[in-house]
Formats: sequence, C-alpha cells, structure tokens
Amino acid sequence: MPNLRDLVAHTRKSSIELGLLSIDRRNQALVAIAHQLRTHQEQVLSANGADLALADDLAPALRHRLKLDEKKLQDMIKGLEDLAKLPDPLHHRTIHRQLDENLILQRISCPIGVLGVIFESRPDALVQIAALAIKSGNGAILKGGQEALHSCQILLSLIHQALTTVSIDPHCLELVTTRAEIMEILQMDDLIDLIIPRGSNEFVRYIQTHSRIPVIGHADGICHVFIDREVDREMAVQVTVDSKAQYPAACNAVETLLIHQDIAPEILPLVVQALRAHQVEVRGCSQCLQIVPDLVPATERDWAEEYLDLILAVKIVPSLQAAIDHINHYGSHHTDAILTSDPRSAQEFQQKVDSAGVYHNCSTRFADGFRYGFGAEVGISTQKIPPRGPVGLEGLVTYKYLLSGRGETVADYTMGKSFLHRDLPL
Amino acid sequence: MPNLRDLVAHTRKSSIELGLLSIDRRNQALVAIAHQLRTHQEQVLSANGADLALADDLAPALRHRLKLDEKKLQDMIKGLEDLAKLPDPLHHRTIHRQLDENLILQRISCPIGVLGVIFESRPDALVQIAALAIKSGNGAILKGGQEALHSCQILLSLIHQALTTVSIDPHCLELVTTRAEIMEILQMDDLIDLIIPRGSNEFVRYIQTHSRIPVIGHADGICHVFIDREVDREMAVQVTVDSKAQYPAACNAVETLLIHQDIAPEILPLVVQALRAHQVEVRGCSQCLQIVPDLVPATERDWAEEYLDLILAVKIVPSLQAAIDHINHYGSHHTDAILTSDPRSAQEFQQKVDSAGVYHNCSTRFADGFRYGFGAEVGISTQKIPPRGPVGLEGLVTYKYLLSGRGETVADYTMGKSFLHRDLPL
Repeated sequence: MPNLRDLVAHTRKSSIELGLLSIDRRNQALVAIAHQLRTHQEQVLSANGADLALADDLAPALRHRLKLDEKKLQDMIKGLEDLAKLPDPLHHRTIHRQLDENLILQRISCPIGVLGVIFESRPDALVQIAALAIKSGNGAILKGGQEALHSCQILLSLIHQALTTVSIDPHCLELVTTRAEIMEILQMDDLIDLIIPRGSNEFVRYIQTHSRIPVIGHADGICHVFIDREVDREMAVQVTVDSKAQYPAACNAVETLLIHQDIAPEILPLVVQALRAHQVEVRGCSQCLQIVPDLVPATERDWAEEYLDLILAVKIVPSLQAAIDHINHYGSHHTDAILTSDPRSAQEFQQKVDSAGVYHNCSTRFADGFRYGFGAEVGISTQKIPPRGPVGLEGLVTYKYLLSGRGETVADYTMGKSFLHRDLPL
Repeated sequence: MPNLRDLVAHTRKSSIELGLLSIDRRNQALVAIAHQLRTHQEQVLSANGADLALADDLAPALRHRLKLDEKKLQDMIKGLEDLAKLPDPLHHRTIHRQLDENLILQRISCPIGVLGVIFESRPDALVQIAALAIKSGNGAILKGGQEALHSCQILLSLIHQALTTVSIDPHCLELVTTRAEIMEILQMDDLIDLIIPRGSNEFVRYIQTHSRIPVIGHADGICHVFIDREVDREMAVQVTVDSKAQYPAACNAVETLLIHQDIAPEILPLVVQALRAHQVEVRGCSQCLQIVPDLVPATERDWAEEYLDLILAVKIVPSLQAAIDHINHYGSHHTDAILTSDPRSAQEFQQKVDSAGVYHNCSTRFADGFRYGFGAEVGISTQKIPPRGPVGLEGLVTYKYLLSGRGETVADYTMGKSFLHRDLPL
C-alpha cells in the first residue's frame, strides 16, 4: 500500500487522462461497470451479508440503508445504463465572444479534477458517485461508512475491474476506509479540488471548518409546507401527508407545517386525522391546540428541529408574509412549498422564500436529482452559491476560458484600440 | 452606531428588498451614484488627499493605487454608466422542464444574498464592487484598506445619498473599517453568504481557514507564457513583453517564460533584449545561461515565485508536454499562454493546461472582467469550482428551483407513474 499522498497524487494524474477521454469511452466504462455488477451479484450480496452480520446493533433505519438486495442491485445497474445515455457534461460552450476582430473568447465546461466524497452507510451511493465522477471526467477519493466496508470494497474492486477492461486507469477512483485518512485528505488542497460530505449537519460543519478546500455542504433539511387561505382541501391534505410520511428520514421531508389562520379551523382537523393515520405525531402551537386540543404542544425549539422521523410541528400564521418570514428565519433554505389556489400568493412565495427549491402545489419530496432528471445526484446543497439544490453532473463540472488571438497585446488597447465584445453563436 | 451583528442583519433585510426591485430601479441607482460622484468630485479628492497625507511612508506602487485623480473619477463614472447598460443578471431561466404533464420545473437566477468583500487600498474598487452588488441585487459588507479610510467613507456616503434619492434603503451596503470587525463577520454564516477576499495569498488562505462561509479565493497569479517550436518571432517577443511589462503588479502578468529547446538559441536573445529594454531582470535556467551567459541564474524557487515586479524567470523545456507538466505543477491555475503557429500544439495546450484561462497567441494580461466584456469584476478566482477566472455579475448570482404542480405526490411515482423529463423552451 503506497502512502496516502502518493495514492491521491496518482488519482489526480489519472483523473487528467480520464477528463481527456471521449464521451464514448466514458460511457463504455459505465456500461462495463453495469456488466461487472450483473455478473458478480452473489459476491456483492455476500460481502454485504458480512457487513450486516457485523452490524447487528445498528438501528433499523440504518440497517435498511446498509442492506443490499437484488432489487437494489438492479436499480444500480439501471442507474448506470441510464447515466450512460445522458448527454456529455463536458465541452459545452457557454460563452463565445469576439473581444476584437481576431481575439476570440470561449468558455468551455471541463472536469473539476479530483473530488473527495464522504458518504454514509448506503453502499449503492458508492456506485452512484463513482458513475457520476466517471461521466463528468473527475477522479474521486471515496469514503463510505465504516459499517459498509466489505460492501464498498467489493463494489470498488468490481469498478476497478470494469475500468481495466475498457483500458482506463482504475486509480482514478480510490476508496479510503478510516477517519484518519479523511482528516489527512482535508489538508491536501493541492490535490483535491472539492469536498462533498454527506452525513450529519455537525459533520458537514466540521469539514467546513477543517479544510481550505471548497465544500459542497449538504446540511440540514428543515423544510416547510404552507397551506394558504384559498386551497383545494383534499390536495392540501394529500401533499402534506406525502411531504411528511412518504419517507420521513429524507432531508426533503417536511418538518414544519404552516397554516393560514383563516383556513386553520377547517383544515387542521383534516390534516391531523390524515397524518395520524400514517402514525405521525403532530405537535401544535397554542392556536392549533385551541382547534385540536389533544396535540402535543410545540415549543420554540420545534421550529428549528429536523426530526427525520414521523413527527410534524404545526404553526398557525396570520398571513402569507408571516409564513415567508417564518421560513426564511427558521428554515434551512432547502425546499419549501406553498399549497394555494391563488396564483399571486404562489408567485410572491416563490419570489420571497430564499430556498434552493420553492414549490407550488406539490410535495417537498420531489427535491432530488433523479426526479429533476439529472440522472443521479451526489447530494443536495443548501449553500447559496451554485451548485445549489440537487447536485448532478452539471454540478461536477467547471469551465475554463480559452482565448485565441493573433499576437494581440493589452498595451494596444490602452493606447487607442477598443474592444468589440460581440457575441457569436454558442 | 448599532452593534455589528445588528448592522449586518439590517443589510441582510434590505438586501432582500433590493433583490426584488426591477432592473430599471437597480439601474437608476447606478446612474444616481454616477451623478453623486460627478457633483462631489472635490470632496472625494479632498478626502483622498487626507489619506495620501497620512500615508507618506507607503510604497510608490501602493500610493499609486491609493491616489484618486480626475481621470480615475471619470473612469468610475463611466464604469457605472456602462454597467447600467448591461443586461439584468437576475431572472434568467436556465432549466425549464416538464417532470410530468403538469409538474413544471424551472431554474431561475437570483441574488446570492449578502457578500462580504475585503479589498485592498484602491478606493475605486469600493465603487466598482458596490455597483456590481446593486446590479446583481446583493447586499454587501465592504472592508477597504485602512490607508484608504477617508476615501472609502466619502465614497460610501455618496453611494448612500444616491440610494436614498432613488428610494432604496442605503443600508444594503455598509462599510466596516477594522480587522476585528472582519474577523467577527467571518463567523456570521447565518447572515453572510459569500466572502470575497482580495489581497495577499496568505490573507486569502487565512480567511479560508477561519470561516465556514464559502470563499471566492483570489490568490496567487503564477502565470506562464510558452514559446513553442514554430512561432512568429516578432509576435512572440511582443506578447511576452506585454505579458510581463505592461503592468507587472497585476496577478495576470507572466512570471515564468518557457521556451521550446528547438527555438531557444534563436529566440531567447531577442526576448532578453526586448525585456531588458523594458527594465526587466531576466533569470534563466542553466540551459538559458549557455545561450545568454549574463542572465541571473534561476533556482528552483523561481518557478514558484509570484514576483509582481519587473523580473521574469525563463526555462528551456524539451517538449510541449514538458511545458504543460511544468505549468500544471508550478502554476497557480490562473492564466497561461502558448505562442505557436501550430494549431495542434495550441489545441493540446488548451486542453491539457488546467488553468482558468488558457490562451493562444495573445497576452496573459487579457485575463480581466472588463476585457472579457463582463462590465467589471470583483476578483479573479483561482479555485477550480465556478465561478472560475474573472468574476463579474454572473458570478454574483445563484439560482433557485421553482416547481409547480397540481397536487402531485412522490408516492404516486413509486407506485407506477413515471417521469416525463421533457425539456421546454427556455
């Protein structure tokens, strides 16, 4: 085993070659990985079985994430094949401009370089992230959850075999297994270009304070649904239930429901009944308790809580603006929805709510790279600067400026010549 | 004076209002600032005179940057008026997609929020940054060099007056004056969305390690020019001289010249002669010294040095690939140029050099927001992730995803319904 710095330096070197390959070669690699998974299902499931056997004290939700089965393997294979069909994210021209007659500026998309991706216990995340990295021409250092070690090792070994069969240096993707290695990697700002941590909020913050490398932070999801004064009752109940109960452990599940005071007496009992039918504990503000007295009383802390569980806080607000203010104050700028039949309310909400996703009449659970048609995602960024929201292929590329001339000097333009700045077709 | 956190919170609040204003209102503000500058030239020059009087121990180059005169004021006014003519960076739709028949996804550009911009001794930078912030709908906390304090204070006060005349809350832009305040601001990750530090490399690194807020790092400019085997001699000499001597204190000035060994015996003497005519000290590798014996011998340290001065290191390399390797190893990924008449060399260089700007047959000094047609720039980013290179208006906006439906739930799509993912016209 070479030392860690040498290993990462090798990944960097082979990532440059990967970024120069044609899209056909990169897609071939994805198809080859799908083939390896298809022909080695038993080995994967057996390695995963070893992880599960060692992890018998794991909470049921985490165990569910760790466990692979034939269905999940089929989904992984289909995901690879679908990704191979998506357009190339590289070589897009986003600026094409004559600075002067013979001085042509182009801005062209290109790989970022080497990604450091730290993900949780889901072994299928490794395949998804590796596939996105290959498609976008990036190298990656991967670190999965310790409890998924055997699964990650067999999956990476199959990916390496697949890359070898299509003559791509397999070292463009490497797995590290310890926390100490990740801490070391956070200091390699000359070799790693972007860190993508997935996991708890505290963990993401830890990474942000301990590295100078840019971080795509996938942090809290404190999402809201606001039921406005005028709304289709049945739709409002259905979307609220879906946003909370369809998969409460997801970051895009709703944590706080806001209800306009004019409709609260009528709709709150319906919503509570439907949520309780899905085993959701409802916590209410004092106004809510006047309408449905047997709710759990909500406290100030509930408005800033990411339950990730079958719990929902409900607050009655006097106006659309009060709902917007509450969301911008307590929310995590992830995904928030308004349910309303008034298009002006919807427009104002979508303009003023400062979140990556601002929805009208649909479930917050749609905030996801697959559902947006990105093929897959490496995470959902709650930072303000791009990439914001679900990060797919497009979030894994950068660009460079190519300028071509015939010997132009800046001195000429300080002594009389002026720029043309004429845009050419992209 | 309110406490700093209250001040920044007020800036945040008024930045939201700014971001909701029409482009006409934001442009009016720019024109109003231009008007204030035009009618208060004497006060500005007098405040600047006070700064200059206190700074008589300043190095000549810094004094030159600090000093305002009528020409610089005219440039500032023209810059504001030009910026007002540029298209609105907000409300651009970059994704428009039917996820399903009635479920429509849009990605729309919007302001980032509040910027923290730390700039050096040039008072005109304050006006430029303030103008870019207003145009892009962002609030900003500004911190200029201590030696420019009086100049910055009068300029900000004129900007505040201008904003008041067009009924925009002036507190969307604030000036802080001490280093202690900046240190406090670096911790306000709930109020500040992006830090843009301009200054020394050490300073940028310090900011990156002391804040969880994303940073657009404007760091070293170790730029290269490579003279290839086949090249127009006269053009090569002119572009090299311009890249070095036209303004050596700029980050886009060349620091190392690489020359293909086949052409070195012929071109090196010409380049040295021309550079010396511009008072440039030339430091050469051992091969260079065999051709021009009276060069200062270059050492390993010279290849990683940002002189920002009339000094140039020269190295002879055996091949195009050796030049690319040298640049990717020692460079700062800022701007690098190849001078060649061979289009294949140019293409390979532009593909393989991993820098924000990769040029062919023109001066590295073109790397600049004004010259690219961005209207102005807040800095040049040497990070790999976007915004990379000169950061203008487009680098000061982010986006949000708006999803509008008719009550769609995710549960429906896990039970049979499938996504359409059909792109609509932008």
